[in-house]
Amino acid sequence: MFETIRYDVANGIATITLNRPDRLNAFNSVMAGELVAAFDKTDADDDVRVVIVTGEGRGFCAGADLEAGADTFNYAVRDGGGPVSADGTIDWSHPDVRDTGGKVTLRIFESLKPVIAAINGPAVGIGITMTLAMDFRLIADTAKIGFVFARRGIVTEAASSFFLPRVVGIQTALEWCMTGRVMPAAEAHAGGLTRSLLAPADLLPAATALAREIADNTAAVSVALTRQMLWRGLGMAHPMEAHRIDSRGVYARGRSADAVEGVTSFLEKRPAVYADKVSTGMPGYFPWWSEPEWK
Amino acid sequence: MFETIRYDVANGIATITLNRPDRLNAFNSVMAGELVAAFDKTDADDDVRVVIVTGEGRGFCAGADLEAGADTFNYAVRDGGGPVSADGTIDWSHPDVRDTGGKVTLRIFESLKPVIAAINGPAVGIGITMTLAMDFRLIADTAKIGFVFARRGIVTEAASSFFLPRVVGIQTALEWCMTGRVMPAAEAHAGGLTRSLLAPADLLPAATALAREIADNTAAVSVALTRQMLWRGLGMAHPMEAHRIDSRGVYARGRSADAVEGVTSFLEKRPAVYADKVSTGMPGYFPWWSEPEWK
Amino acid sequence: MFETIRYDVANGIATITLNRPDRLNAFNSVMAGELVAAFDKTDADDDVRVVIVTGEGRGFCAGADLEAGADTFNYAVRDGGGPVSADGTIDWSHPDVRDTGGKVTLRIFESLKPVIAAINGPAVGIGITMTLAMDFRLIADTAKIGFVFARRGIVTEAASSFFLPRVVGIQTALEWCMTGRVMPAAEAHAGGLTRSLLAPADLLPAATALAREIADNTAAVSVALTRQMLWRGLGMAHPMEAHRIDSRGVYARGRSADAVEGVTSFLEKRPAVYADKVSTGMPGYFPWWSEPEWK
Repeated sequence: MFETIRYDVANGIATITLNRPDRLNAFNSVMAGELVAAFDKTDADDDVRVVIVTGEGRGFCAGADLEAGADTFNYAVRDGGGPVSADGTIDWSHPDVRDTGGKVTLRIFESLKPVIAAINGPAVGIGITMTLAMDFRLIADTAKIGFVFARRGIVTEAASSFFLPRVVGIQTALEWCMTGRVMPAAEAHAGGLTRSLLAPADLLPAATALAREIADNTAAVSVALTRQMLWRGLGMAHPMEAHRIDSRGVYARGRSADAVEGVTSFLEKRPAVYADKVSTGMPGYFPWWSEPEWK
Repeated sequence: MFETIRYDVANGIATITLNRPDRLNAFNSVMAGELVAAFDKTDADDDVRVVIVTGEGRGFCAGADLEAGADTFNYAVRDGGGPVSADGTIDWSHPDVRDTGGKVTLRIFESLKPVIAAINGPAVGIGITMTLAMDFRLIADTAKIGFVFARRGIVTEAASSFFLPRVVGIQTALEWCMTGRVMPAAEAHAGGLTRSLLAPADLLPAATALAREIADNTAAVSVALTRQMLWRGLGMAHPMEAHRIDSRGVYARGRSADAVEGVTSFLEKRPAVYADKVSTGMPGYFPWWSEPEWK
Repeated sequence: MFETIRYDVANGIATITLNRPDRLNAFNSVMAGELVAAFDKTDADDDVRVVIVTGEGRGFCAGADLEAGADTFNYAVRDGGGPVSADGTIDWSHPDVRDTGGKVTLRIFESLKPVIAAINGPAVGIGITMTLAMDFRLIADTAKIGFVFARRGIVTEAASSFFLPRVVGIQTALEWCMTGRVMPAAEAHAGGLTRSLLAPADLLPAATALAREIADNTAAVSVALTRQMLWRGLGMAHPMEAHRIDSRGVYARGRSADAVEGVTSFLEKRPAVYADKVSTGMPGYFPWWSEPEWK
């Protein structure tokens, strides 16, 4: 069904595997589209509670596939000159100007399921920026990371100027992007990029354990709301904006069968069994935002 | 005067003690109202330079009081169905939708005095989210912390989607809220939630020492302005917004008797004695904001 | 050419040296103007790839020069009463209300070249807040730091209420500004203020090595864009804002000779030699913002 990724669901966990191992899972426009489609599937499938993204073979994702050589990033040549007029002026709002990596991270940003990156090997360029919109990054201690854009003559992308300073702080984000250095996993971990630095054999077990902790203990609709609340909280200008949303959340969820089960099971000291589904059980005020458009 | 809290002032420090020890100081709507009233008192009283919040007995705050059982969070049943129409539709802007925890944190956000949480024991649910709008969290190493909402079928509240990602970073905030895990104090401290991890006997002395450092060395009006400047700086989109406010601050305070005393005492190498009071001495441009309303 | 600073360019690195060593390089309005002018020069000079700011002698910058004594911060007296009417009311929007430190940090915020603070000795008041808009802070382990404003009766300035909570987190920012404590370099480093804590003899070599890593490996236009993207990313409300800018960046830069050189040199495993200049090569959509005005 997919060309560049594998998609598997088992025991509440969807695993998306970047699957071009002969190219270290290098990113191309087909992969971009397939990743967006895969997150549409995980959101639509109530059997998916958590998503793990990893890479086939020895790499996670080597970045943009450079098989087009010098014209790799020259979209006017590669894809046709849509945004470029005959006189060379560029229509900066043309939809073909849009960065494909950003389409992927904006889609992940909207995910209703938690997303865990299990970075099993080199993650460079879009290979690492695609993970910034994921919730958790676990990394093999043999992996290397690089925000190499300035060393290739281009710039950081995939909306990473929103994500990266918020994940690792502005001082570290500036260093990684303005040097373009390729660094060992340990340096990325020390800088706060990753949640866990692990021996390669421990990577997927740790990702699975974290996924299980969420899937086995929490209400799916609560998690879907919480994920959006926290990520969108980053862009809020005042805590009243959060109060408006979380008040609605507690009010709506507090009347739900899940809340009855949550309190009752706690008082009875037994595991909770939650019934509400993301496909049908999101409260009436959701979504509380309208996504901004490309322009 | 208060039912659910104690309120004491001594030597420039107000201590607010959550005081339902038989319920591990569980939170209810009376406590919410009393906390708001207590912060009105600390702001109005020039003898209060710093506020310490702690818990009576072996807990800090066990979260929402669950004595109402399964209907604990069902406000339409518990408080009457104000926001709910006969046909079941919900008026999401109805004031009864508002989360009481958020009313407390929004009030603390506006505090003119520094606020120190001395977390002496379990702090769960609103028991920990109420501290996110406080300036400093000191914690006993025997305490436990839990953002347990998703394990009860509800969602994070008290405007914590604004506060928590800014205090501990988005990756950690997501983990704590999407797993709902109860964790030892050491894990919360490693994640950046708390300023100090202390033996229980050292907790109040450390909180008091920090309070004294502020009270004994600084100008009250300067601290009140600084607290609001830094917290509101978090929501600014550009440093010019900060420049507009701090320019007014330096201009107004630079003409004050406090600034004369501050520079003179420094040059004379003696302690400063500041005269300006928060009740009467806030500069003419204060407040420089208008609080957003519930809607 | 300058009275209060030295300005030197060598091997792609501009060094700005605060140069009033008999006053521990204390800041005054002449220095403010000269720093703004120096950053105009570094931006205009394509031979400058990176800027290092350090102090002459044993200090970095002792803060505002207190030689005016008690009236140091009383601008109505010191500079004339421009904003103050005969009846004592203050025109808060008068341009003379503007903080000179903020004029400096707002200028550094707009820099097109990376800026490294090499903090060789005491950095107090504006001496440390001026560095918050710089990209990297390296510090000698003998230095001391203090956000001392509240101990002098005034308030934090230089737009630091925007910068400081983003650099060190809100809890640490509040402590440093509300206590006004002077602290050893190690405490500032532990709090996340500085990138590197170094023996004094290692300070300038480390700053130079970081500057060289950027200058020798990256494309100047890519770095100029990246610096603005990341800093401005801090004020964005949604990742779509980043996507709009970085899409234009990748599109414009991807067509450039630099991108051809970047990909080709990488595939040929040789160092890249980038031709585009900041003075002439910034893309047509730059600047993508309009600076907010004082008001």
